[in-house]
Amino acid sequence: MRDVAIIGIGHTKFGRSEKKTNIELQNEAAMMAILDAGIDKKDIEAVFQGAVFPGFEEGQVMPGIFSNSDLGLSPVPCTRFEGACASATVAARDAFMYVASGRYDIVMACGTERALIMGTPYATRTFAMGGHSTTEGPAGLTFPGVFAMAARLYSRNYDIPFDRTLECMAHVSIKNHKHGALNPKSQFYKKLGNLTVDDVRNSRMICDPLTLLDCCPFSDGAAAIIICAADIARKYTDTPVYMLGNGQGAGGPLARIEDITKPPSRIYSAREAFKMAGLSPDDIEILELHDCFTSAELIALECMGFFDWGEAAEATAEGQTEIGGKIPTNMDGGLIGKGHPVGATGVAQIVSVVEQMRGDAPKGNQVDPVPEYGMTDTLGGDFGTLVHHILGRSKRRK
Amino acid sequence: MRDVAIIGIGHTKFGRSEKKTNIELQNEAAMMAILDAGIDKKDIEAVFQGAVFPGFEEGQVMPGIFSNSDLGLSPVPCTRFEGACASATVAARDAFMYVASGRYDIVMACGTERALIMGTPYATRTFAMGGHSTTEGPAGLTFPGVFAMAARLYSRNYDIPFDRTLECMAHVSIKNHKHGALNPKSQFYKKLGNLTVDDVRNSRMICDPLTLLDCCPFSDGAAAIIICAADIARKYTDTPVYMLGNGQGAGGPLARIEDITKPPSRIYSAREAFKMAGLSPDDIEILELHDCFTSAELIALECMGFFDWGEAAEATAEGQTEIGGKIPTNMDGGLIGKGHPVGATGVAQIVSVVEQMRGDAPKGNQVDPVPEYGMTDTLGGDFGTLVHHILGRSKRRK
Repeated sequence: MRDVAIIGIGHTKFGRSEKKTNIELQNEAAMMAILDAGIDKKDIEAVFQGAVFPGFEEGQVMPGIFSNSDLGLSPVPCTRFEGACASATVAARDAFMYVASGRYDIVMACGTERALIMGTPYATRTFAMGGHSTTEGPAGLTFPGVFAMAARLYSRNYDIPFDRTLECMAHVSIKNHKHGALNPKSQFYKKLGNLTVDDVRNSRMICDPLTLLDCCPFSDGAAAIIICAADIARKYTDTPVYMLGNGQGAGGPLARIEDITKPPSRIYSAREAFKMAGLSPDDIEILELHDCFTSAELIALECMGFFDWGEAAEATAEGQTEIGGKIPTNMDGGLIGKGHPVGATGVAQIVSVVEQMRGDAPKGNQVDPVPEYGMTDTLGGDFGTLVHHILGRSKRRK
Repeated sequence: MRDVAIIGIGHTKFGRSEKKTNIELQNEAAMMAILDAGIDKKDIEAVFQGAVFPGFEEGQVMPGIFSNSDLGLSPVPCTRFEGACASATVAARDAFMYVASGRYDIVMACGTERALIMGTPYATRTFAMGGHSTTEGPAGLTFPGVFAMAARLYSRNYDIPFDRTLECMAHVSIKNHKHGALNPKSQFYKKLGNLTVDDVRNSRMICDPLTLLDCCPFSDGAAAIIICAADIARKYTDTPVYMLGNGQGAGGPLARIEDITKPPSRIYSAREAFKMAGLSPDDIEILELHDCFTSAELIALECMGFFDWGEAAEATAEGQTEIGGKIPTNMDGGLIGKGHPVGATGVAQIVSVVEQMRGDAPKGNQVDPVPEYGMTDTLGGDFGTLVHHILGRSKRRK
């Protein structure tokens, strides 16, 4: 397979999109990426789009097709991927494959969603469709419930006092909101940047023990990246970012997962990505992971191998996931601090890693020195779809 | 890219699935394909699934994930593709790419849907989400309306008396129902096998001039294929069928299509497939195309280049799309005669072409001699997503 590079990025402001449809949000992110790459849009040979609930949001099941038409890209193909909250990063993985295989030279991967506009009751019901409809939905189990159970299980598995577990989880929220407040693209830009453990613990209870500040918000937004064959990347940019490895895994009903703090789908997917890239967690300098809830960040850090089982909680409280720590995590604010437009999140995470590797991250969020290797982790459903991408400033080691 | 072969096929009976969920339908088709291929299910490295409305049907947005779990395939990845009625054939195209690129050696492509169970009013509203939600939905334009307009435009473009156009269209229904009645997998097995033009014209009016027998039914069902690298195919079967070429195209709002009897997305997609396969319409001996309505079959035949513009109607009435004619079309009954579980249709079409190439088609439907080259055409939305696959009994000409 050929080496593949990212040469353009686009990312709308996350938040509430009253007036723009998914098609219009997608158009906005796509144009940013096309202009950033400096390509002629006619060079784009295919589009790969993530979107989860456009049918429920707008009665529009193929928004990418109509975005293609608005952008003047049709009749080149546009494929929609539905992997719940991992939809866009699955799209990016397929986009990689079409270029790596030699089928196409230049493609776009993107994603869009209007989850906030749905309103919390409707969004909560539709999001729950990412779980198992015959054993989890009827039990009233929604995602806050899953990660609330995970927090209790984490505390018990590792004999960490429950209050201490919640304190450590609160540090995930404090960190990610601190970085989200510095990110102009964030839903909470200039907000919630100076939280304390008490602020997090005392915010409104959502699903015991998860409070409002333990949870990511519903968001509207879109993101896009332009991907091309590595051998032509420098025609367009002096700072190509190479797609070195990726992995994907599938889960199943929670009832079949022995320990939801160690979901096999995430462990499998991360290992596939490291194997493909020929790298290990020790090589990664920046991480954008799926912190849908504070407990989810701890689980992800351990499943990917950045910390031993049961050690991510204290490590987070010690600042090891901050700039200067072992592995700076969610420097863009993550889902908690930046927002979570589900169908766009995976590509938005890649955009943030590329910004870091260009040295273009918002002031206060930029890792120094500019990282050589970065990674994304995206979760769809309750461990149903897991995808990882490893990015680097230099090509794959042969 | 490597040569790729199909070594296993599975296809449930199409019709009404009262008791089986999409996950259970998918499990059934997948097990048929796995057993047919004679592989160990543990050899499957990834699954690519089409499904359009599982969220609306069952509140289950990732049925493939849970099917993977039921089948013991997890944690290998399962990706869901949403390209309206072309979803499964988009999945098959990506499955091809992952094997052709060398990323995986053995994968499964599949699709499932429960459209009939939704009931006509609900299914009609959800299907319309495949059109443009801001210009077509509000106008009350559903797919029968699109293909009713196409029938009138076809008659006008080519100066064919409207009554004669309808007679020629009726022959599509007569032919496809004749073959559907002979196919045990068909929704109309042993039914409607001896229709006349009057039967078609006098059946209930659905959308003037389209009658009930001009339209495909809503259906429930699933289909699956096992795909592998060509160099290992003969380990599993003496009759591999090779995936020689494929194409995909995107449309847009109908308001931007100059002539809906000549949709650019279909013309582009078919040409891409022929170019990749190094073949032309003259090489193709069997065709499974997207006859969602009788007028749609005429349009498809011309867009793919099997007949000149305006000539498919009379050619159909003359029997040129029957066995012994220029290009036998929809020998499995097509969408009209076999049924149309939208998210499964594309892979189901491929299954039918493979059956023909194995000489295993139902009695009366088998093309003789066994065809060397076959093709599928699948349409999603109102020309939003178009996909073509060209299959052959021998490898690609280098």
